[in-house]
Amino acid sequence: MYNYPVKRVPYKQKSISTSNRGMKFEEYINESNEQYLKRDIAVIHKKPTPVQIVEVDYPKRSMAKINEAYYKTPSTTDYNGVYRGYYIDFDAKQCNSTTSFPISNIHPHQIRHLNDIKRHGGIGFLLIYLTRFNEIYLLECDKMNYFVERSKSGGRKSIEINELRQSGYLIKESFPIRIPYLEQVDKIIDSLK
Amino acid sequence: MYNYPVKRVPYKQKSISTSNRGMKFEEYINESNEQYLKRDIAVIHKKPTPVQIVEVDYPKRSMAKINEAYYKTPSTTDYNGVYRGYYIDFDAKQCNSTTSFPISNIHPHQIRHLNDIKRHGGIGFLLIYLTRFNEIYLLECDKMNYFVERSKSGGRKSIEINELRQSGYLIKESFPIRIPYLEQVDKIIDSLK
Repeated sequence: MYNYPVKRVPYKQKSISTSNRGMKFEEYINESNEQYLKRDIAVIHKKPTPVQIVEVDYPKRSMAKINEAYYKTPSTTDYNGVYRGYYIDFDAKQCNSTTSFPISNIHPHQIRHLNDIKRHGGIGFLLIYLTRFNEIYLLECDKMNYFVERSKSGGRKSIEINELRQSGYLIKESFPIRIPYLEQVDKIIDSLK
Repeated sequence: MYNYPVKRVPYKQKSISTSNRGMKFEEYINESNEQYLKRDIAVIHKKPTPVQIVEVDYPKRSMAKINEAYYKTPSTTDYNGVYRGYYIDFDAKQCNSTTSFPISNIHPHQIRHLNDIKRHGGIGFLLIYLTRFNEIYLLECDKMNYFVERSKSGGRKSIEINELRQSGYLIKESFPIRIPYLEQVDKIIDSLK
């Protein structure tokens, strides 16, 4: 259950354009993490996408060629690492709506994982990119929990944009670190002291 | 440089049997991590093996089938997570020799990564399994550095088994946590205080 399940993931064609639009956000996070690493500020990496390998061939004896494989559902989040001695863990989400961010975009295993992290002294959160407003918010695990619980107990199934603006930390695009989310993590760390 | 390089990795047939022998060690580590998670002791996962995807097909529209892909060289270590508020990071190595563990088994990017981790307040180490003796040692980053530096300055290119026994923490196989390496991490944490 806790390892990467071998279940094959249905992949909807519809989602391709969405995920392409998402590429840049992910790219910018990766670039930011590279900058953080080069400047010796933090060590945060994106985990590889898990793949279930079905058939491997050795056409040249010296090279393994994967002939059949499928995407798997990751059991955790996409990013983790260490910053100021703290374990950092987060997932990046993109939202194309002008009104709200659907709770269904946060997978149950991610909610569980972020809460596991928190309980063991790590810092877990979501980075949510509102494409229509070009705004990025860091939503801490506890704040996320509030909205998840509300939806479970019959409330809204989504986080209104204005709620997100109030509950999250706004991350302003910058240079050379494009998405300087660790400045907001500093606030979380300060609040722990 | 810091991201997963797209370089295709030569894959030697010879190494297949070695890596099969290694499977059990990796399996036991994964099992131990599952136990740690179930018992709410720590959250430590193996990262997926990075794969460079060349061609994807949609035979059923609802399913992505990867038709051509290659293994990539990971830029970090295999395992990371959080324990007692500390960021934990390690790689698992298997050694079939009866005399020494070759330094060449530790990749330069892993040495750099473990030192990055250490500098930022994380705990980095290697788990080395001596198959001929059925002994597992946890070798801390600093101890590893000593042997790496020695080899760079003209000394032995390997760690003698007896040196490993003296420098590493012995991990005794146990139940239900087969490889209870976090007991040894406790000693590292205690030494930090």
